[in-house]
Parts: sequence; structure tokens; C-alpha cells
Amino acid sequence: METIQIRLTEEQIEVLQSLVSSGIYPSKSEAVRDAVRKYIRAYETGIQENIETAQKQVETEIVKVIEEERKEYQKVKGTIDFYPEEKAMRDLLFSSLRNTAKKFNFKEIETPAFETLELLTAKSGEEIKAQIFTLEKRSTEQLGLRFDFTVPAARMFVQKQKELPKPVKWFVIDKAWRYEAPQKGRLREFYQFSCELLGSDKPEADAEVIRMAIELYKSMGLTEKDFYVRLNNRKLLVSLLSNIPQEKINSVLRVVDKVEKLSEKEFSDELKQLSLNEKQIKNIQNITLLKGKPSEIIQKISLESEATKTAVDEMTKIIDGLDGYEDFITLDLSLVRGQDYYTGTVFEFFDREEKYRAIGGGGRYDNLIELFKGEPCPATGFGIGLVPTMLLLEEKGLMPKLELRPDYYVAYFPNVKKEALELVKKLRKNNIVETDLMQRKFGKQMEYANSIKAKKLIVIGENEVKERNIKIKDMNTGIETEKKWNEVQ
Amino acid sequence: METIQIRLTEEQIEVLQSLVSSGIYPSKSEAVRDAVRKYIRAYETGIQENIETAQKQVETEIVKVIEEERKEYQKVKGTIDFYPEEKAMRDLLFSSLRNTAKKFNFKEIETPAFETLELLTAKSGEEIKAQIFTLEKRSTEQLGLRFDFTVPAARMFVQKQKELPKPVKWFVIDKAWRYEAPQKGRLREFYQFSCELLGSDKPEADAEVIRMAIELYKSMGLTEKDFYVRLNNRKLLVSLLSNIPQEKINSVLRVVDKVEKLSEKEFSDELKQLSLNEKQIKNIQNITLLKGKPSEIIQKISLESEATKTAVDEMTKIIDGLDGYEDFITLDLSLVRGQDYYTGTVFEFFDREEKYRAIGGGGRYDNLIELFKGEPCPATGFGIGLVPTMLLLEEKGLMPKLELRPDYYVAYFPNVKKEALELVKKLRKNNIVETDLMQRKFGKQMEYANSIKAKKLIVIGENEVKERNIKIKDMNTGIETEKKWNEVQ
Repeated sequence: METIQIRLTEEQIEVLQSLVSSGIYPSKSEAVRDAVRKYIRAYETGIQENIETAQKQVETEIVKVIEEERKEYQKVKGTIDFYPEEKAMRDLLFSSLRNTAKKFNFKEIETPAFETLELLTAKSGEEIKAQIFTLEKRSTEQLGLRFDFTVPAARMFVQKQKELPKPVKWFVIDKAWRYEAPQKGRLREFYQFSCELLGSDKPEADAEVIRMAIELYKSMGLTEKDFYVRLNNRKLLVSLLSNIPQEKINSVLRVVDKVEKLSEKEFSDELKQLSLNEKQIKNIQNITLLKGKPSEIIQKISLESEATKTAVDEMTKIIDGLDGYEDFITLDLSLVRGQDYYTGTVFEFFDREEKYRAIGGGGRYDNLIELFKGEPCPATGFGIGLVPTMLLLEEKGLMPKLELRPDYYVAYFPNVKKEALELVKKLRKNNIVETDLMQRKFGKQMEYANSIKAKKLIVIGENEVKERNIKIKDMNTGIETEKKWNEVQ
Repeated sequence: METIQIRLTEEQIEVLQSLVSSGIYPSKSEAVRDAVRKYIRAYETGIQENIETAQKQVETEIVKVIEEERKEYQKVKGTIDFYPEEKAMRDLLFSSLRNTAKKFNFKEIETPAFETLELLTAKSGEEIKAQIFTLEKRSTEQLGLRFDFTVPAARMFVQKQKELPKPVKWFVIDKAWRYEAPQKGRLREFYQFSCELLGSDKPEADAEVIRMAIELYKSMGLTEKDFYVRLNNRKLLVSLLSNIPQEKINSVLRVVDKVEKLSEKEFSDELKQLSLNEKQIKNIQNITLLKGKPSEIIQKISLESEATKTAVDEMTKIIDGLDGYEDFITLDLSLVRGQDYYTGTVFEFFDREEKYRAIGGGGRYDNLIELFKGEPCPATGFGIGLVPTMLLLEEKGLMPKLELRPDYYVAYFPNVKKEALELVKKLRKNNIVETDLMQRKFGKQMEYANSIKAKKLIVIGENEVKERNIKIKDMNTGIETEKKWNEVQ
């Protein structure tokens, strides 16, 4: 033990004294001793930083409260409100996507909004990890909002892998969330169409998903004049890089991935930085020039190695499976699409004018299911970003237009309310029907019926009730027709 | 200034000395003084609790890492995976709810999954606040997942309040999230049907939403034998408590709210604790006995005060508007439904056997829009808990049953793949069609077609291609019919 003397301000002494008075410590020096103990513990656990930031937090808090008092409630940045018309138009679009996917015998599933962070980060790159909306911890589990559907679908697949007949064909249309800087075509809350074809390692499966993707875009009204797909096979690309040392392949792929964004000089400079020689660089440059009609490009590929032959054979089978879709397809040997995720076929969809980044894309990922603790299982699939796709549709005038109009407005006088409601109930079996819920005078009811663009108007008064006869006025043409009360439906 | 002497252990002195040696403090006593300063600051900002829990957190962390290594990826507790059949059945149910709501001229909207915590907590009670799934802070905004739809719908309404013709009739069917202990009929991620009728203070509006709620349950196949609605008006109840001092009304309502859960003795004991006299308690007990057929109960209410007369008049108008739905309705003067939220009409839906808590409920909330910084605006609405409702449907054998079967399976021999795919493409215009994606031998293709229960089978071989003639086999009856290739559709 050692004794230390310290001098404290009167304010400090006052606080310590209050702790003693309230019975927390037997003496002021015991309070100081405890302070030292806690300080040391805090020092050791790194918590003292908290103490230092605590004051700042309090200040920020005060600023925030003042700001909050001023502003109105707003939706969160990067999210969308769907008001009735927008919701109805979007649902119309989604239902045509659903119908198309179902024709291909893909089946819709639905996954929880959040998953364990452990699952979400198991195979994700650093960029995506940083974009996950994580939940504040409530129990031992750390949770995050899904950022795509491949991850939760893989989990669901693994849980029933044994009992499901293969291939499994699943799709989802739902929201996912990523913390990104919101911009045109990119939101923090966004809709995706996503599908997975699990259990087939054959090119027929890749062709099936590409066929479906094209049909999905077509079902929204887009044609080969509006969009196209860039197609490649990573195995084919790698087979053509046989004069590049194995350990440099991934670095080269990363540079090739950027070829569209770099000038010719920048591109060769980046390759030089990988210590490649002139011949190797020339080889890579020639490969990236291979893009165009599949049949023509395939002829240009020299079948020097077995690996190239196999990859070309696989590609040819996919192209065969895309018979009738030639106008949509560009074979593009420079397409890499991400770094480590895909194992073979890769493809991306673009609008012809390339106003947007990819509006969709996918490929084969044969290692993923194993990564998620399932039995090894080949897989292929794709996703469509519905936010940029809808912008494209908008631009092309292809967004479905519709007005939400009730079929009938039933106006009534107060003394026949009971009978009017009877009629409303009957009409609602088959029609969208509005009536007065505001005790509006008759004239106001008519005004309201007009303002909501009711298609037909029925007026119920004493005469109508007595004679069991109803006049139906077509609000577009102004023409009135009469019907017996019990004939109305 | 005051001087204090303290004694410290050698270990403590050692740490302090190391701080001095590393130049952080000029002397040990200065280190102690800083410890005291920080301690006091921490004490004042409540941060010392963090210090104490820090060690525990580290321990928990270690336990978690060990646990995580062991277990497989699981979905999060209290969430549901929807596999294709379950998803399709549920969507069938939801689409009948949507159709019914649309007949009433309610329009579907959609809200973001998360909102600012400021909005979510603006009018919520403590219980709900504690159940909000909050997101880890990424910017200055604090966000949480929506726990209902009234809050985000109110925000959306306020943002367009001026331009929207009244009444506004909106509904939502979507997920919401609450951190609760998962149990039968209650999940952390759950589906709700929710609707709001904004802009009418008239009983006609209350009657409209109750009519719709009943029709929604009916559209799922439930009848008056399966469920009923308890109806009350808080103004009516309060008007009958005229002999209770104003300041005790809320406390009394809280006790009345629990009448179903308490014995008669417990009930009167709780009222005694509010210092009510015998007569007052007897009065309250008599009121809670008022439950049954609306017409009969209304007759039993003594119209002593103007307030009671007005409230009974309002109730009578609602009952009038529910003409034809009498068998579903119990007037129950003990129904309070929460504490501060509702301003008039309240109602709750129960299964007749009362196996579940309320399967739905709602009421009038005339102050809410103003609370959310809108112009004052009357409102009424309700929510249906779809998780308990689906359990009830299951129990009654009313959950829609369906099998997802493709219309066609097209089996083919490798040499006519091109022609087979042509046919598949054509058939997919109107049908759900599956074909081989696995390069399966012919026999295996037939097995697979059987395993997925394809309704019809088409086999494409050389003959079929040559003769442009196709045999279609009905897999239920075994009957084969022939068709010309170009007649198939």
C-alpha cells in the first residue's frame, strides 16, 4: 500500500461529499479510491473513451432535440412511399413479372426481412458488409436487414436440401436494403426480382435463366431496341489467359472488370503494374476486344487448350438454348462481374443507351451452397434491379398507367339510408362502391362523386325505394338507364 | 481546494506509475486527480454503468463466438420462411382480403420498412417503444422498423393532407416487427391488415370500417359461428361514470380494461384502491355487466345525462349502419382497448371459443393526425392480426389448399432439343411449363415429370418433329390426345 495526497476543487469535494451523505461510500477518500479503481478498470477495457465522448454526445443530443422540434416528420432518406396510384401501377408491373416467372415453373418464396449478421456476412465482400443495415442488439443474436435474396434463399434451400426435388426453381420479388448514397436509380430501400435455379450444373440451366430474364424484361414492354444482355463465361476467359501466371489471374480479372471505365493507356498501365510483359498485355487487350454477335465471336476464339474447348462447348450449348433471342445477346469476353462469387457463366443486362449501370445480372455460383453449410450443389440465377428498370420504363413511356375509380357512387337522402346501405352491400359483391360517410347534403354528395371520378352514379330517394326502381347514370356519357332494384348486381 | 489522503494497492500504483512514465500525466497524484474528474463526469452523465457492463459484454462476446461456431445457419427467432406452397396459399388469402377491401373503395398503399425513431415513438406507449427494432445509427437519424401501419400512414397522410379528397380510405397488408417473446399466434415479424378512414367524424364512417372488417373475416370463410365483434364507445362509458371524480376516470378505465382477467373480488379490490366508495364501485360493476345484443343493451342504459344521450345516439347510428350484421355484434360497455389512443368508438374481434386474444380491433382516434403535426382531422380504422387469424383458419380447416403443379412437362431426346425448346417457348405463353435442364436420360425425365406432378406430358422425339404432330398425355387420366404442332397453345 502506498499513500498519495491529492488536492481537489470545492465542487469536486461537494460531489464526493454528496456520495458519502447518500450512503454510497463510507468516506470521501473511499470515493476517490473507487474512482481510481474504476478509472483503471476503464483504462484497461478501453471504456474511458466513452467517458470522453459522453459530453459530446450530450451536446449533440441537445442540438438534435432543437432541430427535431423544428422539422416535420419526414420519411427516411432513400425510402419510397407508395400512394394508391403508384402502388397500383407498381403492383400491375410486379404481377406481370410474377406471371412470367410462373410460366417458367419458377415458384415464389418469401424470406424474413432480417437474418443473423453471421449469415449475411458469411460470403459477402467488404463493400456489402459495410452497407448492411444492422439492428441494435436485443438478445445475443446480431441481426441485419437482408441486402439481397441469394443469401436467405440459400439458407432456406440448405434447410430442406435433401427433401426438395432438383432442380429447385425459386424466385422472389421483394424489398432489400443497403446503406448507400441515394441517387437516381439507387435507393436504400429497393425492390428486386431475384431467382435461383439450384441443382443443375448444365448449360441448359444457364440458358433457362437467361431466357427467363429476357422474357421478364419483355413482359414489361421492353424490346431488343431498349435492352441487351452481355454474356460471358469466366472459365472461358481464364482459359484464354493461359500465358498469365496462375497467381496473377485474379488481379488481372479485377483490371479486366474495369476495362469499360479505363482508357486504353490506363488499362495497359494497370496491367503493367502487375509486372506483365508486352505479349501478355497484348493478349489481354485482344481478349477484351472480343465482343459482338455470339456466333461471330465464338469463331474468333482460337481453340488452343482443352480448357478453352470445354468452355466454348459450354458457351455454344447456352447459345443454342437461346435460339430466337439472338438480337438480345452480345458475347463479351471482358465481362467479369465481381471477383470471387461466380464460377462460370456471367451476364449483365443494360439499357441500349447505357444511361444506367446494369439493370440486372447474374451467373453461375456453384460453390455458394457449400459455403452456406449445405451439401455441394451447383446453382445459377440472376437479379433484376427494379428501381433502375422502372426509371427506364418511365423514360420509354412503358410504366402502366391507371386511374383508381370506383364503379359506383350511391348518393342517398337521410330518410332512406337503410335501403341505400342495403343496395351498397349488394353492389359490393361485384363492384367497387362508394357512398356517403360524411352526412353530406345531397349536392355535396354529387360533387364528391365527381371528384373521385365514380364511373356510375345511383341516387336513392323515397321514390326509388317505393317503386323498387333505380336509375344508373353513366358518368362518362351522361346516359341514364333504369333497372329493377333486385336486378342490380 | 482541499487535500485528501488515500491509500492504493501496489497494482494500482503500478498502473498509475506506467501512465506517468509514458508521459500521460506529470505525476501519480495528477493521474488520481484526473481519475476523480472523470469519475465525477461519468457519474454525472451516467456513463459509469457502461464501465461496469463492459466486462460482462466481453464475456458474453466470448460465449457467443463459441456458440456460433457450433450451430448451423438458422432463421431468426420469431420470423417465418415461406416456401412455395405456403407462400401461394397465403397470397391466395391475402388476395381475397385485398379484393374485399377494394370493393369498399379502400385503396392499398405501401410504407417504408423503417421510419425515424422520432416518428415511431411520437405517440406510442412505453410498452411499444420497448418493442421497436431499432437500427444501428449510420447517420444523424435514429431509425426503427415499423411496428404498425397507423403511424406511417398518418405521416403519409399529413404530407398530402391538403390535396387529398376526404374521406381518405387506405389499407395496407404487409409485415411489421415487434420485439416480443414469440408464442403461438404472436411472432416478431408478422403480417397485418390495417386500414384508416381519415376525414370523417361521423358514425357512418365507424359503421363502414366495422362492416368492412366483418366482410374481410367472411371473405376468408369465417362465419358468425366462428367470430364476433365486441363494440363500445369510450364516450358512452365515460358518460356513465359521472359520479366518479374526473381525475380518477383514467385509472378506473384501466381497471375496467382488465375486468375479463380479474375475479369479481380482485376487480372491486382494485377499485377500492382508487378510494372509490361502495356506491361508485357498484355503479362500475353494473356498467361492466352491460353486454349483449346491441338493441337490448341500449334499452338498459339510463339516459340521465346529455353526454349519455349523445353517445347513445351515436352508438344507435353505428348499429343502424350495421344492419344485417347483428349476429356478429356484442355491445360490451366494459371494452376500453388501450388507454389514451382512442377517442370514441372502440371494437375488438374475437374467435367465439376465445382461444386467442383479439384477432383484430380498432376504433376512432380523432386526435392522432394533429399529434403527427397535421391539421386536426378525425379518423377511424382497424387492424387485423393475420398470424392469429391464420391459426384460426387452420383450426377451422379454412386455410386455402393448393398444389403447385406445372401444366406441362416437355420431355425430349437430345437430337431434337432445339425443336423441343421452341415448343416450350410457345406453350409458355399460356401455360406453366417445365422441361429438362439436367441433361437427364429419357426415363429420368419421365420420373421427374411424375415427381413434380405435371398435369400433362409431351414427348418430343424425331417422329414428332418430322410429322409435326404431338401427343399430349393427361397425367391424371392417362388419356392421350393428338394435336398438330402449330395448334398447340
